[in-house]
Amino acid sequence: MLTYTLKKEKGRSLYDALYHKIRADITGGLLPAGARLPSKRALAGNLGVSVATVESAYAQLLAEGYIASRERSGHFVCAIGERKRPAPPIAPQESRGSAPALLDLSGGGEDVPFPFSVWAKTMRSVLSEQTHELLRPVELCGVPTLRQAIAQHLYQSRAMQVAPEQILIGAGNEYLYGLIVQLLGRDIRYGVEDPGYRKISGIYAANDVAICHIPMDSDGLCVDDLRQSGAQIAHISPAHHYPTGNVMPIRRRNELLHWAHEAQGRYILEDDYDSELRHSGKPVPPLFSLDMGQRVIYLSTFSQTIAPSLRIAYLCLPRDLMRRMQEKLGFYACTVPSFEQYTLARFISGGAYEKHVNRLRKRYRDRRAEIFAVLEASPLRGKYSIREENAGTHFLLLLRTEKTDAALKKAAAQRGLAVKFLSDYRADGQDSGGCMILNYACLPKEQATRAMELLAQIL
Amino acid sequence: MLTYTLKKEKGRSLYDALYHKIRADITGGLLPAGARLPSKRALAGNLGVSVATVESAYAQLLAEGYIASRERSGHFVCAIGERKRPAPPIAPQESRGSAPALLDLSGGGEDVPFPFSVWAKTMRSVLSEQTHELLRPVELCGVPTLRQAIAQHLYQSRAMQVAPEQILIGAGNEYLYGLIVQLLGRDIRYGVEDPGYRKISGIYAANDVAICHIPMDSDGLCVDDLRQSGAQIAHISPAHHYPTGNVMPIRRRNELLHWAHEAQGRYILEDDYDSELRHSGKPVPPLFSLDMGQRVIYLSTFSQTIAPSLRIAYLCLPRDLMRRMQEKLGFYACTVPSFEQYTLARFISGGAYEKHVNRLRKRYRDRRAEIFAVLEASPLRGKYSIREENAGTHFLLLLRTEKTDAALKKAAAQRGLAVKFLSDYRADGQDSGGCMILNYACLPKEQATRAMELLAQIL
Repeated sequence: MLTYTLKKEKGRSLYDALYHKIRADITGGLLPAGARLPSKRALAGNLGVSVATVESAYAQLLAEGYIASRERSGHFVCAIGERKRPAPPIAPQESRGSAPALLDLSGGGEDVPFPFSVWAKTMRSVLSEQTHELLRPVELCGVPTLRQAIAQHLYQSRAMQVAPEQILIGAGNEYLYGLIVQLLGRDIRYGVEDPGYRKISGIYAANDVAICHIPMDSDGLCVDDLRQSGAQIAHISPAHHYPTGNVMPIRRRNELLHWAHEAQGRYILEDDYDSELRHSGKPVPPLFSLDMGQRVIYLSTFSQTIAPSLRIAYLCLPRDLMRRMQEKLGFYACTVPSFEQYTLARFISGGAYEKHVNRLRKRYRDRRAEIFAVLEASPLRGKYSIREENAGTHFLLLLRTEKTDAALKKAAAQRGLAVKFLSDYRADGQDSGGCMILNYACLPKEQATRAMELLAQIL
Repeated sequence: MLTYTLKKEKGRSLYDALYHKIRADITGGLLPAGARLPSKRALAGNLGVSVATVESAYAQLLAEGYIASRERSGHFVCAIGERKRPAPPIAPQESRGSAPALLDLSGGGEDVPFPFSVWAKTMRSVLSEQTHELLRPVELCGVPTLRQAIAQHLYQSRAMQVAPEQILIGAGNEYLYGLIVQLLGRDIRYGVEDPGYRKISGIYAANDVAICHIPMDSDGLCVDDLRQSGAQIAHISPAHHYPTGNVMPIRRRNELLHWAHEAQGRYILEDDYDSELRHSGKPVPPLFSLDMGQRVIYLSTFSQTIAPSLRIAYLCLPRDLMRRMQEKLGFYACTVPSFEQYTLARFISGGAYEKHVNRLRKRYRDRRAEIFAVLEASPLRGKYSIREENAGTHFLLLLRTEKTDAALKKAAAQRGLAVKFLSDYRADGQDSGGCMILNYACLPKEQATRAMELLAQIL
């Protein structure tokens, strides 16, 4: 008869202890395959526990296949096969990357002002009023009220005419890039801007997509190069290119639309990551509107304006592409929690979003003026010029220097200053002659002053 | 001199009206390329508006490339190129699918009880206490406190030893499947269960991955077939297979681990979609634990236990795979909003999650007993048997019939009853002889009673 000492331990039931003892004996070979276990009643008597305890332990062993029961003859140990002895686990992973720089001019926004109280109030009202909707699974495109709110917002703020049925909500730009690849296919080439936002190339590479780096001139993507590249998709940010800050003029926009309509299956992916942050005038009308939504996929995000930790971005798709999306990928669920979607929908339609964006614009305008003043008062004066287009949260600081970007970067790093140059955004890494990208969204005056002093030292 | 009648309209500024008028004249050809625009002062005087109004309109036209300014000579119309005349937009999309069935035995859970007040309270405390953390961008793996809470939960509920650094949070299973493909590669074969959850095959197909359908016996995936298929990845649900409900016994688990260790680059993806919902005993220990985390990727989700609209799932990765993930895909941001992550972390570590799951288990246990009673009291009595493993929210209802699944399904649909058979989950669609999948999570007694009457009619 099996005999174990079962101690009642805190947080562990007797049946669990018994299950473990028997299991250990089976895996250890003490109870070989074919061995008959005592009846529940007998074992319970022997161990001084209840029959229910033995019953539960046997049931668990049964469920996991350690034992089998044969009608009228009781329980028997199963052959469990040899267990592969695992090698000792590998040592814990080292933390990646080097020590953080003391001063960072290269971006990384943690400093977005956020209307907590309004957002919290909106959340509370969603929680109390929409309990049923909140639990329902959400189909691929997102909840209807948010799609309506976005359509309305695009119409009012950008005169963009897009139906709610053309909008698809997703957990951030990066997710949506991947979804577009699933929609349009992996066997065609995608053209990306060079220089450009490097993460985009990284995401296409991770999705095993062939990319072509298309050169830019001051008007944007060079259409002849695009044509020669054989790319079918042009991924561009015409409203405010990163990092150069260029805004694509109407002539180039028309040329690009021409290109898109020259052949079947060509599309423009219009990546409008920060169009809401123009400092003056209104945002430039998107290609999506010029084209009336045939060959242009429009993509935008709330990360820049609300918070990068709120993962909500959206696509506006031509109607035929939306149909294809539903047919091919309609089995996916939407990746954004419904609660966030309802909250954002109310936040937009109640007017809080617009107010917030206006405040943001003012804040960045002030920051920008402050940085300009800091530059003029710094030892850098006379040694730089600025290129920018009245938009976003960065500009190009052209340093007058004979040094290479790499040399400047190294010297800056030695002084605890993280900087990025145009060369960091070029596919071939070609030197830009000191064309620095200055992100000022999270750069308080004191830090900026100190940073300019350090920069002047290394020129 | 340009002359327009500018009317002040509600919600539209004068400068916007002027901008539109001039733009229309440029695109319409009334103002040809090279034409000189009047000076701001002159135009302002002519139109009776302020100079600032004209200035803003010109600035917008400049930004969009409709006009250019030459120093000391004023503003000129640019050549904008021919605009492609878009074809009329396509008619709005038809709604997909047919009319919904009156009674649905095939699943689709909207009826999960949810502890709203506790969740709301948790949300409020997160909102008031963690304002700073909430705005920070979240790196690929998710916020540390949630990873810790999950590790703790897995240890306490399943004796699974996994370090928080091995956990990766993502916006739902479906997203994580795609991420795994990006990690492990698209040039290898993925083995999936047949019969199995069809969406998994769909997601691999959308990711352009070659899948092999591996047959199942009553113990689970047939390892010999897996070996012969050439698959490197085995995607399985050993804790509770869908739709058969099988629990994989320890012997088969060991065989599978053997297979995984036979060759480099083999991995088991252990899809533990509803393991928390065992009705009796404790959940079966995962393969991840048996293997001590070398060749097993563990995947689980909160969709089944909290709500399908809360998109939070997670992976537990072997340490070397986590290292590869960080190297290859570490540039991605986490897809779950940080607010949801902090809320869930507190919900788990404060004990509310465990309480909720216990309540769910009881609820589904009661539902199951109720359905069994309904079946026995129905005209189906004597014409069915049940196959199930004391877990989850569905079981197999084996109908005694000569009819094919297809014939039964058609007859049921004619009576407004939606049903699914095992054949719906087989790659080749082979008839199962009336082996129906009955999802009872959202099936109240009255509906069940009516459904069984209808079923009896069509047998």
